[in-house]
Formats: sequence, C-alpha cells, structure tokens
Amino acid sequence: MQRPDLILFDVNETLSDLAPMAGHLEAVGAPGHLAKPWFASVLRDGIALAAVGATAPFADIAAATLRGLLATTQTPDGLDRAVEQVMEGFTHLAVHPDIAPGVEALGDAGVRLVTLSNGAASVAEGLLGRAGLAERFERFLSVEDAGIWKPAAGAYAYGLTESGVTADSAMLVAVHPWDIDGAGRAGLHTAWLNRDGATWPGHFRGPDVEIATLPALADELG
Amino acid sequence: MQRPDLILFDVNETLSDLAPMAGHLEAVGAPGHLAKPWFASVLRDGIALAAVGATAPFADIAAATLRGLLATTQTPDGLDRAVEQVMEGFTHLAVHPDIAPGVEALGDAGVRLVTLSNGAASVAEGLLGRAGLAERFERFLSVEDAGIWKPAAGAYAYGLTESGVTADSAMLVAVHPWDIDGAGRAGLHTAWLNRDGATWPGHFRGPDVEIATLPALADELG
Repeated sequence: MQRPDLILFDVNETLSDLAPMAGHLEAVGAPGHLAKPWFASVLRDGIALAAVGATAPFADIAAATLRGLLATTQTPDGLDRAVEQVMEGFTHLAVHPDIAPGVEALGDAGVRLVTLSNGAASVAEGLLGRAGLAERFERFLSVEDAGIWKPAAGAYAYGLTESGVTADSAMLVAVHPWDIDGAGRAGLHTAWLNRDGATWPGHFRGPDVEIATLPALADELG
Repeated sequence: MQRPDLILFDVNETLSDLAPMAGHLEAVGAPGHLAKPWFASVLRDGIALAAVGATAPFADIAAATLRGLLATTQTPDGLDRAVEQVMEGFTHLAVHPDIAPGVEALGDAGVRLVTLSNGAASVAEGLLGRAGLAERFERFLSVEDAGIWKPAAGAYAYGLTESGVTADSAMLVAVHPWDIDGAGRAGLHTAWLNRDGATWPGHFRGPDVEIATLPALADELG
C-alpha cells in the first residue's frame, strides 16, 4: 500500500476512548450501559439530517438525545445539571493508548495529519492537546464548517479542499464502518481501525486496509 | 387540522411493540438492554447508506449489527443460531395496544391506510395480520422497492407515487423524530406518536400534530 500524503482522522471513538462515559452516566444516577444507545442515537440523528441535506451541531444533538435518555432517571441535581455533567465528561476524554505511538510514527514518516470530526474542532484540539499530540496535527477540522455530517460526500470534500489534496492522495482512518464506507465512496483510501476484532458488516464497502492498532498502520505504510 | 386522504404508517416501534426484544436477547444469553443500541445502530447504518445514495435490506443490516453486538456473549447454541433466534423474535412482534382502535377509527373515517417501512413489507403484513388488521390497510410498502431508506426524500416520494397521491394530501405517522423531519421536508403532513411523553428534539423540524395514542389522531382529524 502506497503512503498517502495526508491522513484524515475521525475523532470520537477513533482517537478518544469513550469507556469513561459509563462512569459519567452512573455519576448522575443513570445506568452506564446507556452510553452505547446514546452515541448510536446521536449518530443516527446527525446522519439522518445529512440524508436530507441538513445539519445540526454535534453538541446540540448529543445534549437533546441525552436529555431524552435520562428523562426517566432520578438525577440527584436535576435533569439540566445531569445533562451538563455528562456533556462535560464527554469533552474531557482521553485518547486510546495506541494513539500516541501511532501518531508519532506516522508524523515521523512525513505524513500530514488532520482531524475531520462530526463533532466540534475544539473537542478534537482539546483531546489531542491533553495527550501532548496537538502539534503533530496540522488542522482540526469539523463538519460544522462543511454544512453536512459524514458520511455525506460533502463532508469529505470539505476536508480535502481545506487540506489542498485530492481524494486519491488522502486516507481516512476510523473505527466506524459507515465512515469508512462514505470515505471510500468519496474516493479516499481507507483504514479501518478495528481494536475489538469485530467482523466487517457486509452492507458497507470494505476498507483498503484493516489494522488493530494505529502503530500497525505506520508499519503497513512503510 | 384537515383530514388527509392517505396516511403512511411507519412500522417498527410505531406499530410494533419492541419491548419483547429484551426477552429474546436474554433467551440467547445477552443482556436485554442491548435491544436499544441494536435498533439505534441498525437505523444509523441504514440511514448512513441513504446519506450516500446507497441501500441495503433491513434484515441484512439487523443481522450483521446483532452479530457484532453478540460477539462477546456466551451464546448456548452458538452465534449463528443466536442471531437467527433473535431475528425470528423480531419478525413475530405484536402491535401496541392503541393501534387496533386507532386504525379502526381512522379507517372508519374513510382515510386510506398504507404502511411505509424501512423494513420488509412482509414483516408489516405479518404484524398487522396477526393483529387482525391487515384488511384495513391498502398496501404494505417497503423502501426496499424505493432504493433508499427514510428519511431520504426518495423514500417518501416512492410511497406517494405508489399510492397515487400528492404530498399535501398525505400524512406520515411515526414515533421517530427523524422520520417526521424527513416526511415534513418532503412536503407531507406529519403526526408524531409520542407514547412516552418525550420532549421533541429541537435539531429536527417539528410535527404538524402530536398525539399520545393513535385514537387521539382520529379525534384530531375529526
């Protein structure tokens, strides 16, 4: 596999470890297992807007969806405060342990690194800043400036235009099959970061390369 | 509110009660609370394909997603059998208690009734057949024949064309805000069936009418 000039990184779950969200939910009196339906529902709603050519900020959808999920929970300090607390936890996550060595190896190899998130650019910048990796990234891009969420073609086109590269010089790295599928259809190379040994869901177009950790991608790209 | 000539009914969760899915998951050794992330993930994936102009059958996405969720579960008869059993449960659900009186009242009022599902037409037909309501419906339509899932405009356009009505003579009834939003953008009237007293998520365009039970819609339409 040829080395791309530029790698676009998905952020939520790909760079950030969402595991602590269970604890943040428990801290406001909700079951920790709500983290999974919460995140899947946020993506469902943001992508539903993309399917009709519309958009809304990730944080708005995340807060509204959380409010719905917590509606029947006895929250000690009230619903508003509970939503605020969990959202606060979401903006203070840490990166997965494989991210620092992977980012360093890819950066040392001369690949340009940019984030392209359905969330806010500031969340990606904060996440990588806390990990001491912010300087390794050229830009922190958000679909908020593209006017449409991934996996719509316009979101990837925005990332490419802002970075000044064509699709075939770029690679998307993501844990989410729907993101890999969208990027592949938009003409980018794709790397599926499959940390959990999951089976590829056959309803999506497959990735160009599959790796279990980010340093393995640096190895693959030579 | 003027009575529409035709009502398009969403099927999964709107007509069918998904509550028994928790028990079907427990029967194969999985936690019942996986039902929520399962269904949200299926919708996320099908709608992600809609956002890139592609599609896949609901049953394929549902089975692949379930397989992913059950991968770490100790299933007594193996993963294949577990997926099969849960999918079997999904195709044998019952309607919510408010559906029969609501469908009868709307049918008696002379409104044409059609289902428009992201799932298979046969599942809707089976569901309403078991409830003794199949003859009240003119057609059972699936987006499988539209080539794209709701909330993409093409899915609603297919339902209207097949029914021979214009958007402003039709109403969509659904529990899902993303479906109401898409139908509204496609020009249909919309009724949000809000059985749980949820708050409308402000990132979506609101419904024309909100009801807590289906008979209340018959009352609203006079």
